[in-house]
Amino acid sequence: TQNYRITLLPGDGIGPEIINVAVDVLKIVGKQFDLQFEFQQALMGGAAIDATGVPLPDDTLEMCRNSDAVLLAAVGGYKWDSLPSNLRPEAGLLGLRAGLGLFANLRPAKIIPQLIDASTLKKEVVEGVDIMVVRELTGGIYFGKPKGIFETETGEKRGVNTMVYSESEIERIGRVAFETARKRGGKLCSVDKSNVLEVSQLWRDRITSLSQEYPDIELSHMYVDAAAMQLVRAPKQFDTIVTGNLFGDILSDAAAMLTGSIGMLPSASLGDKGPGVFEPVHGSAPDIAGQDKANPLAQVLSAAMMLRYGLNQSAAADKIENAVLQVLESCDRTGDIMSPGMNLLGCHSMGKTLIQAL
Amino acid sequence: TQNYRITLLPGDGIGPEIINVAVDVLKIVGKQFDLQFEFQQALMGGAAIDATGVPLPDDTLEMCRNSDAVLLAAVGGYKWDSLPSNLRPEAGLLGLRAGLGLFANLRPAKIIPQLIDASTLKKEVVEGVDIMVVRELTGGIYFGKPKGIFETETGEKRGVNTMVYSESEIERIGRVAFETARKRGGKLCSVDKSNVLEVSQLWRDRITSLSQEYPDIELSHMYVDAAAMQLVRAPKQFDTIVTGNLFGDILSDAAAMLTGSIGMLPSASLGDKGPGVFEPVHGSAPDIAGQDKANPLAQVLSAAMMLRYGLNQSAAADKIENAVLQVLESCDRTGDIMSPGMNLLGCHSMGKTLIQAL
Ligand SMILES: CC(C)[C@H](C(=O)O)[C@@H](O)C(=O)O
Ligand SMILES: CC(C)[C@H](C(=O)O)[C@@H](O)C(=O)O
Repeated sequence: TQNYRITLLPGDGIGPEIINVAVDVLKIVGKQFDLQFEFQQALMGGAAIDATGVPLPDDTLEMCRNSDAVLLAAVGGYKWDSLPSNLRPEAGLLGLRAGLGLFANLRPAKIIPQLIDASTLKKEVVEGVDIMVVRELTGGIYFGKPKGIFETETGEKRGVNTMVYSESEIERIGRVAFETARKRGGKLCSVDKSNVLEVSQLWRDRITSLSQEYPDIELSHMYVDAAAMQLVRAPKQFDTIVTGNLFGDILSDAAAMLTGSIGMLPSASLGDKGPGVFEPVHGSAPDIAGQDKANPLAQVLSAAMMLRYGLNQSAAADKIENAVLQVLESCDRTGDIMSPGMNLLGCHSMGKTLIQAL
Repeated sequence: TQNYRITLLPGDGIGPEIINVAVDVLKIVGKQFDLQFEFQQALMGGAAIDATGVPLPDDTLEMCRNSDAVLLAAVGGYKWDSLPSNLRPEAGLLGLRAGLGLFANLRPAKIIPQLIDASTLKKEVVEGVDIMVVRELTGGIYFGKPKGIFETETGEKRGVNTMVYSESEIERIGRVAFETARKRGGKLCSVDKSNVLEVSQLWRDRITSLSQEYPDIELSHMYVDAAAMQLVRAPKQFDTIVTGNLFGDILSDAAAMLTGSIGMLPSASLGDKGPGVFEPVHGSAPDIAGQDKANPLAQVLSAAMMLRYGLNQSAAADKIENAVLQVLESCDRTGDIMSPGMNLLGCHSMGKTLIQAL
């Protein structure tokens, strides 16, 4: 038996409901694959603010550090929107990424055939789309200094943030991206704004040098504005995309939306060693929280990503992913992915259906 | 008779072909509306590099300054891609924006009913889309300092760019945006990343304060990642968008691509006073240059924007825009917007057809 200690961060809104489903699913596949999960739970985001005054209590970070993987649901909500930004739920997320050194964020945007009609794009444009965005997550303008709001001599305020990447930061994420592309279609598109930004020129330079170590990978470069266009125009041209923190934030969301079902998309955030964090791409949906209406599938697929990328248990991950497809095949749907003629399920029943499929 | 001195910057690739068509069109409407255009031509971009070694010769900038408006075609091409970035065609563009103080970039993304099938999005999603992106163009990370590639003590290189906005810069573009929204649907969405960036917090703050002067405009705020999603998910929700230089670069291109016919989209770059620059959104298309295949309509519509926003001649602008629609209605198409059953025209013939329509 393999033992794993998993930290659960249910967070806010629909978080607790959907993470429960993922835990049930993990328990079942644990039995099937002889994996023993020890779950421990901690506060993060709005829930942590309410209880402790800060979005990421030290205890929580410590518990995460001492675990094999972290399963996060979602944080945030209107309730905390007016707090100063360093005390908002999002600050907890940034603190977790920095605190665990999670420099690589993997965001798949894959069309699920059963849900293709939900895409706002034409079927022939998105059929077969399978993109992995590898986003740098602990550098760039999210963390660069100087940053802040400063007063000039004239008393006028200036807001300042700094986009900075060092060679080693670029190489580190570059390696993850080339390795990821190797396990996929063998194509990597590096996205930058090197026609304007020096930081992007260094980025393009280092990625290009690195490509000599990966002669089997077909590398291309694209400006971020062109990439935003091409995602809309012809998304099938992309296999793996690598880019910085801010561009990755924007492009991974655009790519996710091409699928039309953002309630289905998981993500993984990985460091060099130590636990990764696995979470759905969607938010905490406070408007439907506690109503048993949430779609737990992105959370369940995040648990599958945890097995695959965090715990190296890809057979168990496959099992979960296939069960999700099977449920969709049998026309069970939560409200967000509902369409005429399908069976509408709540969050809890969707979980039960999944368990049966397993 | 009203006299206008217009500087033409044909630039590279298809630039000279398409600007010729626009000049012919301007001459005709000039006669019709009693406007006298004096055209003067200057080098910019790759053409200027080849002739003088720099992408924006002083003479060119001077000539632009001394004119009532600048009509630019497109710059750039593979040929100059390996030059150092400060000597590339794009640097000429940035120099022109800074040199003329063109802080406001207006980029319409409007579905043309006759071309709606060219969109990769479903008809019901894009039907009626009419978005104006107001992008700040002389500030933000494009021009902020420090910038460059620096060596740290350990000999490692770091690339650095700075995103900076002052209160007055934000207010200045904010005013243009509120005024623009007022002339359109009365809705303004300000896009930032204030959950992470301090510069965006100042942005949101100032735009919010400014909105008190425009009580008739419905202001909303959106994070840039959400905006990239929402443009794909439900573009009709947007009327006018205001955002910074980098976010505007990305979102205006994404919005443009929703229409499916980027060969049709013009743009305007305006300063406080002094001449504006009017140019198509598309590039210089070196692959089809000199083959009489280019679509001149975005250039022609840029001339219309010049009349409307640069010279305050909206009747003449209307005339041109209607002529373009009429040509499309009669099924004439260049290659880029061709579809079965339509008449394929070259750049030159498309110009002649337009003249007839006028
Ligand atoms: C909530 C926010 C800080 C975060 C980010 O910008 O990284 C989110 O948009 C994401 O992509 O995970
Ligand atoms: C060519 C480039 C410098 C330019 C920009 O980034 O502003 C272009 O993408 C644009 O949008 O006009």
